[in-house]
Amino acid sequence: MPDPLPESPGLTETGRLEAFCDGVFAIAITLLVLEIRVPEPEAAHHAGSLVRALGALWPSFLGYAIGFLTIGIMWANHHAIFQYVRRSDRYFLMINVVFLMLIAFLPFPTALLAAYLAEAGERRTAVLVYGATVWLIALAFNAVWWYAVRRGLLDPAADRVAVRTISARYKLGPLAYAGVLLLAFVTPWASLVGHFALAALYLLPERAPATSARTT
Amino acid sequence: MPDPLPESPGLTETGRLEAFCDGVFAIAITLLVLEIRVPEPEAAHHAGSLVRALGALWPSFLGYAIGFLTIGIMWANHHAIFQYVRRSDRYFLMINVVFLMLIAFLPFPTALLAAYLAEAGERRTAVLVYGATVWLIALAFNAVWWYAVRRGLLDPAADRVAVRTISARYKLGPLAYAGVLLLAFVTPWASLVGHFALAALYLLPERAPATSARTT
Amino acid sequence: MPDPLPESPGLTETGRLEAFCDGVFAIAITLLVLEIRVPEPEAAHHAGSLVRALGALWPSFLGYAIGFLTIGIMWANHHAIFQYVRRSDRYFLMINVVFLMLIAFLPFPTALLAAYLAEAGERRTAVLVYGATVWLIALAFNAVWWYAVRRGLLDPAADRVAVRTISARYKLGPLAYAGVLLLAFVTPWASLVGHFALAALYLLPERAPATSARTT
Amino acid sequence: MPDPLPESPGLTETGRLEAFCDGVFAIAITLLVLEIRVPEPEAAHHAGSLVRALGALWPSFLGYAIGFLTIGIMWANHHAIFQYVRRSDRYFLMINVVFLMLIAFLPFPTALLAAYLAEAGERRTAVLVYGATVWLIALAFNAVWWYAVRRGLLDPAADRVAVRTISARYKLGPLAYAGVLLLAFVTPWASLVGHFALAALYLLPERAPATSARTT
Repeated sequence: MPDPLPESPGLTETGRLEAFCDGVFAIAITLLVLEIRVPEPEAAHHAGSLVRALGALWPSFLGYAIGFLTIGIMWANHHAIFQYVRRSDRYFLMINVVFLMLIAFLPFPTALLAAYLAEAGERRTAVLVYGATVWLIALAFNAVWWYAVRRGLLDPAADRVAVRTISARYKLGPLAYAGVLLLAFVTPWASLVGHFALAALYLLPERAPATSARTT
Repeated sequence: MPDPLPESPGLTETGRLEAFCDGVFAIAITLLVLEIRVPEPEAAHHAGSLVRALGALWPSFLGYAIGFLTIGIMWANHHAIFQYVRRSDRYFLMINVVFLMLIAFLPFPTALLAAYLAEAGERRTAVLVYGATVWLIALAFNAVWWYAVRRGLLDPAADRVAVRTISARYKLGPLAYAGVLLLAFVTPWASLVGHFALAALYLLPERAPATSARTT
Repeated sequence: MPDPLPESPGLTETGRLEAFCDGVFAIAITLLVLEIRVPEPEAAHHAGSLVRALGALWPSFLGYAIGFLTIGIMWANHHAIFQYVRRSDRYFLMINVVFLMLIAFLPFPTALLAAYLAEAGERRTAVLVYGATVWLIALAFNAVWWYAVRRGLLDPAADRVAVRTISARYKLGPLAYAGVLLLAFVTPWASLVGHFALAALYLLPERAPATSARTT
Repeated sequence: MPDPLPESPGLTETGRLEAFCDGVFAIAITLLVLEIRVPEPEAAHHAGSLVRALGALWPSFLGYAIGFLTIGIMWANHHAIFQYVRRSDRYFLMINVVFLMLIAFLPFPTALLAAYLAEAGERRTAVLVYGATVWLIALAFNAVWWYAVRRGLLDPAADRVAVRTISARYKLGPLAYAGVLLLAFVTPWASLVGHFALAALYLLPERAPATSARTT
């Protein structure tokens, strides 16, 4: 805040926006553990032993891992694009708030997965709700990125190859995620795996370190 | 903290205050998702399918969206006025704590909305509790702003037109929010919409970027 | 982290410690709202109306206000003493972790107050548990402050009058809080009020701004 | 973000990573208090008095202290190694996300301890689950540290003796924690105590301040 950007009023630096986003990411990711309920002593007796009662919680443990890695990868991607964003304005704040509304919603479809992965009859519905949320997040990532590009919020010194790579990837995102979402109508488990494969692709560096000249 | 402000003891920079406020905003906004309960498998069977059981949760989803956007807009507004605040003192910290007490309370009236929006007989009460909380927050925003103005906590280099615009808007706030609150006695839904219209007004930039000369 | 303090290995700056403390304070204070339960529609019907059901929640609302102001004042005090602390070491981190263990525990005695303030027979127990927690926090504040003073973690340029004022106040703290704690055996309500009076005293500036020369 | 590191694209400074980690640590540690349930007034009547009902909660209080100190010590250790880490890349972010997945999981085994410490028949299972989680965290700490060492993410000016000390300690960690884990098959209480003894060892400074020359 001490030295606001001189170019135009209404533009501010992104420090507090990033801190707020990090806070929401960190809380949403940490709340996931609340969905794993400790078995009551009576339930443990009923199951035969605590070990068996814990084993029956496998969908909760799997849901925790899926939810944590999903939000974690999205945080890493958000971190990656904000390396190139240098400024912010009032509308950019609100686009990020809507983006965060979808991120902070993720514990709900994750808990739905944990509750219905073991129920063959409703597994598809749970995977579809999860996939639809992730697809909306892909759209929101695009909104954040393109608003920053079009309104000139990127760092003028940002590596152009990296910016073009991100732009190309983001254009494909909603289509690819829609494909993975529809895959759940065929087989829910494959759709779940597809989500991870796609998310992992977005983790690839924008540039191969080996081929890059000293650009900055 | 390394270089405290030299003018007077008791004055500190606002970094840690902003970080604390961001933390409370981020947590309050992320806790909202805990109010959306995953339908139990028995409830899903009872409703016919998981899809129908999820459909019956519409007031929870609507409540989540209302609560998230409300807190998000308030965060953006808080961010906006702290661009002009450069210093803090002990009483300013406590005014912000009382302000945050109201912000962190918002998940309660939001959950009340979610629980009673579908109940025609009690919808008005829920909207009134929500509106009263927002009206108190409008008063608290004024307390934060006017204390900063009167005690000279603003950045001396702050754009005077922007400061006057904020002051004018904040004077009108409590009156406008009181009107929207009373509207709930006529029709609760219109009151809800009115809250959003008002909040959106506060998002407008303090200055039109086009007309401003290079002021800093 | 970029420029570690040169005097001695094992000493680091306090930025990340303050951020961690702020996080715990912000979360503990925001979790308080989870203790206020929205009345179930059946409970509202039973009470006659939602308004009455909300009225019956007064101990929860009072507990929320007490808990929020208590943690808020403690945060402001922590903020105040860390203005004078410039460095940290491994043991100082752990003293702060123990301090935070007591701060993060406060939602429990606060919920206990909310549950038993309206129960004449057990009100005293609830106020004593709350008072004992606050007394332990007063001891922990002393541990944080005196370790920083004795190990030379204070800023060498810190205002000596302010440091002496804080030291004098902290020496009296545990005794004063013990008095307020014991007052609960006579009358629990007076003990509650006493806690606020004491906490407010710690908010007074370490130096009167009027009488101070330019000291920095 | 303002001045990215010039050496190579894909490398960023660690500020936002540390902030995210601090957020997850702070939330996981503060959520622990939610596991301590306020006794219902009926339960208090049943137990004879509120004091007795609170006394029966001793495993919850013990679990809270164990969980808080465990996460607190791990935070201090994370803080300690990040003093020497200067840069980050995309894979380092994901290694830290997996590390945080285990840290944020700790409230579950801690709640398991609180629920089963008083149950002689299942105490061992609870201690084993807790110990296995801590052992996985020791492995994850190694992954974070060795990736940073091998990929050259450490500060080139970092004290070499300190770096060697950390490396030596981390090599021993998984073995030592495995020993403490297996001890639970003999006696669960000794295993719990062993966890604290080990964690405390990691708190020792990497260098004795007395013997060190001015190294920076």
